[in-house]
Amino acid sequence: MDYDAMFNTQLETLKDEGNYRVFAELERRCGDFPRAKSHDAEAPDEVTVWCSNDYLGMGQNPVVRQAMKDAIDQCGTGAGGTRNISGTNHHHKLLEAELADLHRKEDALLFTSGYVSNWAALSTLGSRLPDAVILSDSLNHASMIEGIRHSRAQKVIWKHNDPEDLDRKLAALPANAPKIVAFESVYSMDGDICPMAEIVEVADKHGAMTYLDEVHAVGLYGPRGGGIAEREGLMDRITLIEGTLGKAYGCMGGYIAGSAALCDFIRSFASGFIFTTALPPAVAAAACASIKHLKQSNLERLQQRDRVAKLRAMLNARGIPHLDNPSHIIPVMIKDPVKCRMLADILMQDYGIYVQPINYPTVPKGTERLRFTPSPLHSDADLEHLIEALTVLWKQCALARAVA
Amino acid sequence: MDYDAMFNTQLETLKDEGNYRVFAELERRCGDFPRAKSHDAEAPDEVTVWCSNDYLGMGQNPVVRQAMKDAIDQCGTGAGGTRNISGTNHHHKLLEAELADLHRKEDALLFTSGYVSNWAALSTLGSRLPDAVILSDSLNHASMIEGIRHSRAQKVIWKHNDPEDLDRKLAALPANAPKIVAFESVYSMDGDICPMAEIVEVADKHGAMTYLDEVHAVGLYGPRGGGIAEREGLMDRITLIEGTLGKAYGCMGGYIAGSAALCDFIRSFASGFIFTTALPPAVAAAACASIKHLKQSNLERLQQRDRVAKLRAMLNARGIPHLDNPSHIIPVMIKDPVKCRMLADILMQDYGIYVQPINYPTVPKGTERLRFTPSPLHSDADLEHLIEALTVLWKQCALARAVA
Ligand SMILES: Cc1ncc(COP(=O)(O)O)c(C=O)c1O
Ligand SMILES: Cc1ncc(COP(=O)(O)O)c(C=O)c1O
Repeated sequence: MDYDAMFNTQLETLKDEGNYRVFAELERRCGDFPRAKSHDAEAPDEVTVWCSNDYLGMGQNPVVRQAMKDAIDQCGTGAGGTRNISGTNHHHKLLEAELADLHRKEDALLFTSGYVSNWAALSTLGSRLPDAVILSDSLNHASMIEGIRHSRAQKVIWKHNDPEDLDRKLAALPANAPKIVAFESVYSMDGDICPMAEIVEVADKHGAMTYLDEVHAVGLYGPRGGGIAEREGLMDRITLIEGTLGKAYGCMGGYIAGSAALCDFIRSFASGFIFTTALPPAVAAAACASIKHLKQSNLERLQQRDRVAKLRAMLNARGIPHLDNPSHIIPVMIKDPVKCRMLADILMQDYGIYVQPINYPTVPKGTERLRFTPSPLHSDADLEHLIEALTVLWKQCALARAVA
Repeated sequence: MDYDAMFNTQLETLKDEGNYRVFAELERRCGDFPRAKSHDAEAPDEVTVWCSNDYLGMGQNPVVRQAMKDAIDQCGTGAGGTRNISGTNHHHKLLEAELADLHRKEDALLFTSGYVSNWAALSTLGSRLPDAVILSDSLNHASMIEGIRHSRAQKVIWKHNDPEDLDRKLAALPANAPKIVAFESVYSMDGDICPMAEIVEVADKHGAMTYLDEVHAVGLYGPRGGGIAEREGLMDRITLIEGTLGKAYGCMGGYIAGSAALCDFIRSFASGFIFTTALPPAVAAAACASIKHLKQSNLERLQQRDRVAKLRAMLNARGIPHLDNPSHIIPVMIKDPVKCRMLADILMQDYGIYVQPINYPTVPKGTERLRFTPSPLHSDADLEHLIEALTVLWKQCALARAVA
């Protein structure tokens, strides 16, 4: 049996559709973000990264770096075991306490990634609560979808960001079934934000628990970086808050925060938590320093907002169409995978501007886009260079302009 | 609906059975492994760790630590994105090349953990190869079991390490169905090693691909640390080799190695690879340094073997029963969760010896054990202290001794 031939057939289909992915190989220049060395032979040696999810540049913050290096000298490079078998380090416990405090919850539980935290928590809740039904926003992230799928619990999809549809769907379920309403605060590909107060009201009315993914919001929103729930004063209304340490906090790892019983339950039963080597203590220490910093410093958030507003205004002035949304994410819709890659290639090769073309399966086919994430570190000159390049390309490619 | 009450009910059951887990909170003392500071109020301030999967102590190796710190200064603390969206760093590519070379395969693909590599690779193979059947050794690790479950492919369980049973089960399947034989080299809880040559023969005969988990073998076996397949000269007979960077290599992360088509296929379709922040470049750099070191240095492996042989001999001399096996893992069977925890507590509190009691769901109920993993860093004095403590406890507890 020729397995490679089977693999190649499916890869060919991707290539034919224009959905085959080529990764840009970079070395981010610490101390000089958003600059990176490029290993792409066609591109300039140095490029400006416009699509990182290290949204605030915390990955180069000296305090965060020093915390990581100190913990390496103190505890070594790895945890040396699963959390149960010798892998629980003091730095993990400190970080969990920090996260519980961030979200004003009784406890928090650390995972190796945000993906694993969603997958493990939802699959455990869905499979271990008898007759549980999971109500999932139609645009939820892959990690939630896979967790729900894995649980084999009944799944009901409700219309994206539509509390009325959620209400109808909850009303149709048996009153005594455990119900989990799973949704995100900031949706990372469109940059829209959920109507959290209404969703929480509806969930409460039907006795459902709320499962909120704040992956693209923690560090970025709320006076201490607690996310949209903090900003809206709703943290105590959410049963479980899930987040990542890999985006605004500039490190790696995921977590959930909630009641002590909830965290202990997931800790005790989730395969994806139990059967894997714990995060390196040094990564936990770095994340902890990053959270602490963003709890008391608003500067990075204000600078980011300024850069985002400025880029939006420049795009509007040039008539370059982009999704309007209340977040830090600026999607410029191209709606074709081949054109999208072509534009990204030109930006990279001719202008040293790196923005990854976003295609299927990250977004639905036909909604391909360039997704810009301005950070506090993008200068006025960076913004101007980008907007000049886009203006030239928009003319050259004769793509439709937004109505002014 | 009182969700906390539901969680607590299930936690109570665990507690009643003696299966509730209490994690030991430690700070490994870098430069002084296997010593760790303990945060357990009942234990001495300093303890000796006897159950780490940092099998060779590479987590404190100066070259590995320096590589990690250098990469932090060079690229920052996190990758800043998924592999597709700005997160592919030069260090990831270097590590993938190093791994491909280690296993003499065309390519390798990095994941955030060994758990995720198994789960993602098996769920993708099982779900995307039409009519695939996965033949799974009955003692395979949770990460493989969950990956197979997630794929919803047909699953056939064969008797642990029994190529004849595998042969029968393969023979009963349709000749033209894609078949994946999934197994491990070193089974981590019993420490036994699979009959790889026979398994490979049987798989070949039936046109099945082979999926081998070498998580507890890479770095430890084979002249360059390529695992049992390297030692047996069978690497080219295995379709996919999966491993971890979190155990013998002392860092974190997982990977697969195989043909270019296979790796590209998983890269392109595996949700658990695509939708998650990449490993910190610094972790990749550290792992790369660790692999390189263990490719050319046999010293750590020889010292470990010496320590393992010595502890086995001491246990035999005192008549303390332990599973006989050809690996570096020494399981002392207790067969009761409450007794097992009690023994571990006394070792920790009275002797400063930390060995985690291993219970359900890591091992089947009734097979609870203490699992010792002697490293090159355990001194003669450490061995003697351990054996004296165990001898006293064996007398006190009047546990059955092995027949001399
Ligand atoms: C909404 C959402 N949830 C979860 C994740 C996974 O988080 P992590 O990157 O930490 O695995 C992502 C992206 O990666 C995401 O966009
Ligand atoms: C056999 C086996 N495979 C895979 C894993 C997962 O590897 P990792 O710890 O890197 O997630 C483990 C243990 O953790 C294991 O014992």
